[in-house]
Amino acid sequence: MADLAQRVAEAADLVTVALDELLPRGEGAESRLTEAMRYAALGPGKRLRTYFALETGRMFDLDERSVLRTACALECIQAYSLIHDDLPCMDDDDMRRGRPTVHRAYDEATAVLAGDALQAAAFEILAHPDTHSDASIRAELVMKLAHAAGARGMVGGQMIDMVGVHAGDLGGVARMQRLKTGALIAAAFELPLVMARAKEAERHALLAFAHDLGLAYQIVDDLLDAQGDPELMGKAAGKDAAKGKANFVTLLGVDAARERLGLLRKQTKDHLESFGKRAEFLRASVDFVLERRN
Amino acid sequence: MADLAQRVAEAADLVTVALDELLPRGEGAESRLTEAMRYAALGPGKRLRTYFALETGRMFDLDERSVLRTACALECIQAYSLIHDDLPCMDDDDMRRGRPTVHRAYDEATAVLAGDALQAAAFEILAHPDTHSDASIRAELVMKLAHAAGARGMVGGQMIDMVGVHAGDLGGVARMQRLKTGALIAAAFELPLVMARAKEAERHALLAFAHDLGLAYQIVDDLLDAQGDPELMGKAAGKDAAKGKANFVTLLGVDAARERLGLLRKQTKDHLESFGKRAEFLRASVDFVLERRN
Repeated sequence: MADLAQRVAEAADLVTVALDELLPRGEGAESRLTEAMRYAALGPGKRLRTYFALETGRMFDLDERSVLRTACALECIQAYSLIHDDLPCMDDDDMRRGRPTVHRAYDEATAVLAGDALQAAAFEILAHPDTHSDASIRAELVMKLAHAAGARGMVGGQMIDMVGVHAGDLGGVARMQRLKTGALIAAAFELPLVMARAKEAERHALLAFAHDLGLAYQIVDDLLDAQGDPELMGKAAGKDAAKGKANFVTLLGVDAARERLGLLRKQTKDHLESFGKRAEFLRASVDFVLERRN
Repeated sequence: MADLAQRVAEAADLVTVALDELLPRGEGAESRLTEAMRYAALGPGKRLRTYFALETGRMFDLDERSVLRTACALECIQAYSLIHDDLPCMDDDDMRRGRPTVHRAYDEATAVLAGDALQAAAFEILAHPDTHSDASIRAELVMKLAHAAGARGMVGGQMIDMVGVHAGDLGGVARMQRLKTGALIAAAFELPLVMARAKEAERHALLAFAHDLGLAYQIVDDLLDAQGDPELMGKAAGKDAAKGKANFVTLLGVDAARERLGLLRKQTKDHLESFGKRAEFLRASVDFVLERRN
């Protein structure tokens, strides 16, 4: 669906330009910090969270500049989490999206600090009056994103990943995914839903969509890790198996994981039924996202 | 001033109890994360930022529970920054306040994640309706704290410290201090000032007080690093000189640093003149803070 690929690419361009304006530019010694922040946040990326946020904003006729600022905040959190995940004491990765990771391009201290500053930037952007004229909306956006990014969301999931899930514990892997990557994917829908003051039924349907999409996305990730082309992915493959880490594919095997993915793909789209034509592009994006090769 | 020591200790107790309630308790694999967060945030500490925030709140007759929540957010940021500063790739410290640092008590990955989650917790606490009934105040609190904690504040200062200040560059050391420790000390006054909707002149006077107090505080820190008793401090002494790091004492020498401290002490109190008796305890706290031995 060439139309959709175009739409996703346009969303990525929009958020990159907006982030370029919003992220600080340091002088003197801090320039090392702000350069590392920009290296991580403005580099190549699929920007799927941005795409989901913008598409949700369109469904509810939200002001695009407002939604774009929440997308910038989401991308700051995403960029910071990747910087910290790549650190030697975490996943110890040298390459990310075909480029050296931040601690390789700079150094470990700069990577820790650039991640820390990107997290702060996310909340500074969200709370700023330019994000929304209603301060109660802005405060709620901050609360939702902080919750999704914190100990009961993304960072909690990363901790489970570090501690390791017991062999055979499929529920444990699902829980880890729901927190580690699912929480921020869900936030890409939830933040625009807050701005739209959406009805409970709409909120429920879109968050169920986000949940299943996040799960399906992770299964694709695990399939790519097991079978993907490192050159196409811009990072090493087979890492989880090599480290003895449990994931959907190491636990289920490739065939059963593919089968589950097929079921999830249909179930994911079903959640959008009540939105009719308004959800046309979100519906199409399910196939687009799940057929990715990197 | 026994009365004041008591008042500072009471503020520390108040914030520790409040943080204990606010910080998450994890089950399963995340319990490692939440335990590390609690180890860092609930451990011994002077809690001076909390004391300053509460005292400022009293000057403006603010609701104590509201101020206490902003103090919790400040302490989360303070705790996270200490965890990350102590990491092997940063200052590489084994001991903090007489106890093993978080990466020593747990491990490096847990330390990175506990710091990350404490930062998110700070903003989640501030943005919550319990912090203040007026959402525009809450959004402004988030903006001010995120700015103070980010690339143009605390993290920027930490980066300058990592890159290093040129030998003889006293202005560079002052700038590093203003960002690295000064920004969060100033926030302890600024957040209550936001809640009080203080007049510009009051705001100006208290922030000038915070600025000079922060500077004086750092000179005391550098004097303690050069001459302090490691056992009393609960951490190693002489670190900056050993690492060839420029600080106020390595640049000025002990005598000139002491002299500057004496001048600053008077200047700091002068900023409080217009507040009269309302600032009685803040005025007294200058001597209390600057005469500390650890």
